Amino acid sequence: MKIKGRGFAHERDLVLKFWKKGFAVVRAPASGSKVKRTVYPDVLAIRNGFVFVFEVKTTGRLRDVYLDSKQVAKVKEFSKRAGGLGFVAVKIVGTGEWRFVPIDKLQLTRGGRFKVCKLDVEKGLRLTDLVELTHKTRRLDEFL
Amino acid sequence: MKIKGRGFAHERDLVLKFWKKGFAVVRAPASGSKVKRTVYPDVLAIRNGFVFVFEVKTTGRLRDVYLDSKQVAKVKEFSKRAGGLGFVAVKIVGTGEWRFVPIDKLQLTRGGRFKVCKLDVEKGLRLTDLVELTHKTRRLDEFL
Repeated sequence: MKIKGRGFAHERDLVLKFWKKGFAVVRAPASGSKVKRTVYPDVLAIRNGFVFVFEVKTTGRLRDVYLDSKQVAKVKEFSKRAGGLGFVAVKIVGTGEWRFVPIDKLQLTRGGRFKVCKLDVEKGLRLTDLVELTHKTRRLDEFL
Repeated sequence: MKIKGRGFAHERDLVLKFWKKGFAVVRAPASGSKVKRTVYPDVLAIRNGFVFVFEVKTTGRLRDVYLDSKQVAKVKEFSKRAGGLGFVAVKIVGTGEWRFVPIDKLQLTRGGRFKVCKLDVEKGLRLTDLVELTHKTRRLDEFL
């Protein structure tokens, strides 16, 4: 419960940052309350019909980040249905900064998990990049 | 808590109906858990970049339905940010059917609330109409 509480605080931070930029944002309901017939991401931010789907990860300092295959599958499934873009949203807690790594950039590990390597976190998109995308002034390809 | 439980059951019904039609769907987190700096709707359904924003109401039989001005304002604000369409989703519990009335169709009452009149509920869009919209084969105007 302590750990869950901390995770929620970071999700809320992400929600507020996008809200301030004019996005419609929702945090998904807590796990536990639901019948498991649908999947949903941690956070969803929408603007001008652009849908960004996030799995949220936090790390104390810049390093490789790991996700379960289930987490990746749920972001992909949700994004595909929505016609949106899926990302791992990594918060580097030390600096408070967020980096957004497209879900397709992940590497499958031998153990069947997924890895975002340190360099991809470092070179990840920033909040301002995602905001700019919704202005339709630049295409995603230009950032990658 | 009993009443809230029943409301959730109807929201879940709506979520599953859209999910089965290929939408990405989320139910917003329960009130109480959040900091009140953002607003979000009861249910959000997205497909092909089309964003539908719902305030959920249930009624035993076909009749006028009332909403608080706050509920209407939150759907409007969220839809505007998302670039989506806001609806009151009315479940007629007797028949189990849903009708979707565009949020702009509501009438302001003298008491400062909003009313969806019985006839507008009856003539409201159906689930199949909203699905069809996301195929981009017909425009919303044609339904109204």
